[in-house]
Amino acid sequence: MSSKRKTRRLPASRERRPAAGKQATGQWLWGAHAVLAALANPQRLPARLILTPEAAQRHAAELHPLLAERPELRPESLGREAFAKLLPEGAVHQGIALATPALPQPGLEELLHGNAGRASVVIVLDQVTDPHNVGAILRSAAVFGADALITTERHAPQENGVLAKSASGALEHLPYIRVTNLARGLEALKAAEYWCLGFASEAAEALGGFAAPPRTALVLGAEGLGLRRLTREACDLLVRLPVRGAIRDLNVSNAAAVGLYELLGRSSKGET
Amino acid sequence: MSSKRKTRRLPASRERRPAAGKQATGQWLWGAHAVLAALANPQRLPARLILTPEAAQRHAAELHPLLAERPELRPESLGREAFAKLLPEGAVHQGIALATPALPQPGLEELLHGNAGRASVVIVLDQVTDPHNVGAILRSAAVFGADALITTERHAPQENGVLAKSASGALEHLPYIRVTNLARGLEALKAAEYWCLGFASEAAEALGGFAAPPRTALVLGAEGLGLRRLTREACDLLVRLPVRGAIRDLNVSNAAAVGLYELLGRSSKGET
Repeated sequence: MSSKRKTRRLPASRERRPAAGKQATGQWLWGAHAVLAALANPQRLPARLILTPEAAQRHAAELHPLLAERPELRPESLGREAFAKLLPEGAVHQGIALATPALPQPGLEELLHGNAGRASVVIVLDQVTDPHNVGAILRSAAVFGADALITTERHAPQENGVLAKSASGALEHLPYIRVTNLARGLEALKAAEYWCLGFASEAAEALGGFAAPPRTALVLGAEGLGLRRLTREACDLLVRLPVRGAIRDLNVSNAAAVGLYELLGRSSKGET
Repeated sequence: MSSKRKTRRLPASRERRPAAGKQATGQWLWGAHAVLAALANPQRLPARLILTPEAAQRHAAELHPLLAERPELRPESLGREAFAKLLPEGAVHQGIALATPALPQPGLEELLHGNAGRASVVIVLDQVTDPHNVGAILRSAAVFGADALITTERHAPQENGVLAKSASGALEHLPYIRVTNLARGLEALKAAEYWCLGFASEAAEALGGFAAPPRTALVLGAEGLGLRRLTREACDLLVRLPVRGAIRDLNVSNAAAVGLYELLGRSSKGET
């Protein structure tokens, strides 16, 4: 007993306990868009690529140049049963998955130092926990050309397979920055000349009724809960969506898409 | 053996086999918003209301007047294990669920007869199959005040618990119309003076660059697949989202929210 106790490791802290789908080689990403985008990202250091024979055939043309750049990575052909054993239950993997460490992400200061003085829109999420929603917001942010998604260290998803699948490749294009204290993060954004625009359904002003400055942070809270008091107080303006129907609240990823469209889509002159 | 064989029922046809979560008493809806909105809808004829003790307490104030209108409905207090047996796996039920037949829905002709000559925006979905997405689109349509969601009989979700949960009560406010032939449905819309605006990522024109007529049908296809040829040909104009980022395609529910905002949100003078 005593020798056992001696060698028993201390209970892992919450942060260190491997989450479902996490491997010693990093974590699993799955789905064609997420995996192909990760392979195309030179910052990624993937450890394993697994494919069903059908997926290998379906994506052969896209995989060929990507794998030529990564001679050390040998794709493994596996059946659906092997996928089920490696990936979390319910993972919509489309026959393709990649084990890879999480991407290095810049800190908020690094982001602000890098884009000082330039037009920029960033998304700030106040404790939005659902990785499907956060992933979809990353995707919309990448579509409309926002600069980063900033959220909290706690009560926000880590970079993981569900988030990456919903982000549909956007994780490779956009910094996903998690800060310890969001109110302080908003102060840093304001010090860097971002105008902080918070979404709150009870606000008097409606989105679309004003022109936002070139540097704007779009701040959204969790569905049902909204922005926390300190977050709300840190905003320069609170706006609501111009609703006229029977229901007043959009899904948070839809609200973010509408906000991004208003700030970056409608006004985009240099769009492609 | 032979007597066993005699009493064994014939395999049920695919259509007749009860789907997960379906009861003789209709189907289960779950989640606080979906269930409370269904109870508030006089067209609903619910058969069973089940609640965990915690949910009964949490929603006591909202439930009281709703149940006073429905003296025949006796709420049943059940534990989480009983919920797990009655509802499909993974249902995010929040301790509240309602068994109820699907709502009667109008036909397309009925809708067009009822709103002739009035300003109206409807959403048309071409084989969008994911009930989470269709539910989120119903919700956005209800938020911005669209008149109906029209989709195909096949390759589209039925009214069910997942759809209702994502719709967050919107199923009670908006007709969900499924037509056998979508190209013919679009012809009927055009005959009723709807302008059909299709979303296609390769379109030359970008959303926001023109004013849409007061009667517009916003037509969206499934992610990755887009609009089918006949659907595309039936549209009066194809538009793309004004994207400028690394990724070109929004999640379909986010694309719908942006389209609805452009057509109904930005221009809304009579908004509340």
